[in-house]
Amino acid sequence: MIEYEWKQINKRRLFDDLDKYASYGKDERGGITRPSFSKADIEVRKMFIQELEDLGLEVKVDGIANIWGTLKGNGKKSGAIVIGSHLDTVPNGGKYDGALGVLIAKEVICCLKERNLTLDHDIEIVSFTAEESNDFGLSTLGSRTFVGKLTEEDLFDVADSSGQLLRDALKVVGGDLESIKEMEQMRKDKKVFIEVHIEQGQRLENKNISVAIVNNLVGMYRCHVSVIGESNHSGTTMMEDRNDALTAASKMISVVETICKSDETDLVGTVGKLDVHPNAVNIIPGKVEFFFEIRGESQSRMEEVIQGIEREWKSILKDRDVIITKNVILEQVPIQLDNEIVAVLEDTAKQIDEPYLKLPSMAIHDAAHMAASSKSAMIFVKSVGGKSHCPEEYSEPKDIDAAANLLLQGVLEIDRRFD
Amino acid sequence: MIEYEWKQINKRRLFDDLDKYASYGKDERGGITRPSFSKADIEVRKMFIQELEDLGLEVKVDGIANIWGTLKGNGKKSGAIVIGSHLDTVPNGGKYDGALGVLIAKEVICCLKERNLTLDHDIEIVSFTAEESNDFGLSTLGSRTFVGKLTEEDLFDVADSSGQLLRDALKVVGGDLESIKEMEQMRKDKKVFIEVHIEQGQRLENKNISVAIVNNLVGMYRCHVSVIGESNHSGTTMMEDRNDALTAASKMISVVETICKSDETDLVGTVGKLDVHPNAVNIIPGKVEFFFEIRGESQSRMEEVIQGIEREWKSILKDRDVIITKNVILEQVPIQLDNEIVAVLEDTAKQIDEPYLKLPSMAIHDAAHMAASSKSAMIFVKSVGGKSHCPEEYSEPKDIDAAANLLLQGVLEIDRRFD
Repeated sequence: MIEYEWKQINKRRLFDDLDKYASYGKDERGGITRPSFSKADIEVRKMFIQELEDLGLEVKVDGIANIWGTLKGNGKKSGAIVIGSHLDTVPNGGKYDGALGVLIAKEVICCLKERNLTLDHDIEIVSFTAEESNDFGLSTLGSRTFVGKLTEEDLFDVADSSGQLLRDALKVVGGDLESIKEMEQMRKDKKVFIEVHIEQGQRLENKNISVAIVNNLVGMYRCHVSVIGESNHSGTTMMEDRNDALTAASKMISVVETICKSDETDLVGTVGKLDVHPNAVNIIPGKVEFFFEIRGESQSRMEEVIQGIEREWKSILKDRDVIITKNVILEQVPIQLDNEIVAVLEDTAKQIDEPYLKLPSMAIHDAAHMAASSKSAMIFVKSVGGKSHCPEEYSEPKDIDAAANLLLQGVLEIDRRFD
Repeated sequence: MIEYEWKQINKRRLFDDLDKYASYGKDERGGITRPSFSKADIEVRKMFIQELEDLGLEVKVDGIANIWGTLKGNGKKSGAIVIGSHLDTVPNGGKYDGALGVLIAKEVICCLKERNLTLDHDIEIVSFTAEESNDFGLSTLGSRTFVGKLTEEDLFDVADSSGQLLRDALKVVGGDLESIKEMEQMRKDKKVFIEVHIEQGQRLENKNISVAIVNNLVGMYRCHVSVIGESNHSGTTMMEDRNDALTAASKMISVVETICKSDETDLVGTVGKLDVHPNAVNIIPGKVEFFFEIRGESQSRMEEVIQGIEREWKSILKDRDVIITKNVILEQVPIQLDNEIVAVLEDTAKQIDEPYLKLPSMAIHDAAHMAASSKSAMIFVKSVGGKSHCPEEYSEPKDIDAAANLLLQGVLEIDRRFD
């Protein structure tokens, strides 16, 4: 049974915290620009570490500059229950993507501390380095390195567009490439990882539900497509003499949309980037390049859809003279999160009467990588309008509150159930 | 009756001339770069003027630096029969677009000279300034100014991207803005204008016919279209929650193609320039901008097609939430060439047993403007593969020969028939 007297997290404290952290990296366009290793990131890290120390946590900055804070348990059970996310943002991003998960974790630890609760497990908070796309070309840098997917060797020569070496940037925020080897030992100790994050989509909003329990992360397929036709004068080339790369590409894009729309799973397909050559008003496009992306929960379903799209492309292009070349640039299989943790979170949501959806994550998060070494799951918070990576990114207080309480109770339940 | 002993132009001389002129402005990419006012243009003008003088013509460079050469007639009939085109090229263009019309005109005059033929009319050759798109933003500059469509006032402050004033550039090639007013008198004297030009399309090639007699120039409609949807994360936004500007634009482009292809006239429609925003692999396009162009012989047919396209756009977009804004940037009505001159050229082609097509021009030429003050027509020469404005631009010797002979005989016939 939940102990109701301290069921609730402290909303006021959490929302004040969100505002305080959002003041780091505030930009002129009303958003937050706080990429890892920026001045704003350096400052927010200092404050964060200070706050963890003030809470009495043991703080450690690992080789890749992930920040860990430990609330020691009573030692009855081995391994730590880790909660957290990341404090970096995209340029002109919002105040929730990343920070919300870290600050809810901090609020949970505050609650445990102020009720003088000592759990059977150590409880840890983490803020991962450089989760977002960044100038070093390595998103989810902190979590990938932590679980051993990126090694000291991989990172040794990495530099940003100005030529600054990652290993130098790391030193400024307390990291050190040479300490990466220590992570092998460290990660054995992280039994469970739970990340709270905004949904960045509209599935919760469409059902008017505050939270989702995330049971897997979708696979991703990205492919660069070149459509080669023939450039010609737009006035003097009759319709039947044309070999227009853009009209061909337009048909191909419609196929992607039609097939993905008719799919009954959560699969999505997008052409987000497209360039026309030579791109002049009076020249029939001779070449179009575009990127086409498919994300889905099921690898086999993704493969079927990709094959279906390519079959349909072939069929609609058979009377055209265009040459299509394809170059797969990313093939990431779906990642299953931990069924046991998902089950505990579901039970907890029921116990506290919090309606929830069970959803796949359509984007990659640090939890996707942590799943390689810890029992991992995620909690999503409803995003207004699905907006993220922009100043309009917003989640309502009641939904944030629901997620924080679910995490608090979930951690307690995991501490109880797991040995 | 045609006097057969001098029916033929001198092919060898004409092809040598084409090669000689093509050596001015030869560029590294195998094409010809000879925009007006460039070093190559200044040099080619010098040679051209010298050659006209060597032929015994009276040479005049007018205020906009068009070069005129007159072979005086016997004075029996007033007004001049003018033949010619332009010597400037686009960057990395070919050796035929422009120069062919000027050099065939020169060959015709050579033929008259060497047979000591004095006609009833003066025969004039012209090379117009800056017919091609250029850095001053004024294509068909020479002909438009000559017929009074551009005035001294219009041109006074015109500068190129480096800030050089057109009026200064003109002085280097013998022009002078202040002399533009003299053109009002000059143009009264140009009774007929015939321009030979490469087709730049494939209509002649498709029918395997060497020449076309051009009876009109198509109208042109250009419109800038903005399609506004909503940018969103490509992973987290389900298909049914999307408002993708690119999938909407793709449907719109397909409509333009389908409707223009099904039109049974020579009408053509093109989307040549298209830009996606923000144009990132993992962001659903929030905005697409494109230019859509229609060219056709009949103004009323063009209007019907444009209305048909817009009706169909409305219908296919009715279930989408995109906002479409349209901005018409060019509306040029079709230009009728002179029926009498066209008829004489047709009769002449029949007399010399030269098969021909009667075609509209799908692009604007100097003849379109000259038609405002002179009885004008054009002769097209078959283009291999329809290619132009590129080093691959090519017309076969036998087709060039056919056009040159048609012009020669056409000029003689006009001289006879017109008073």
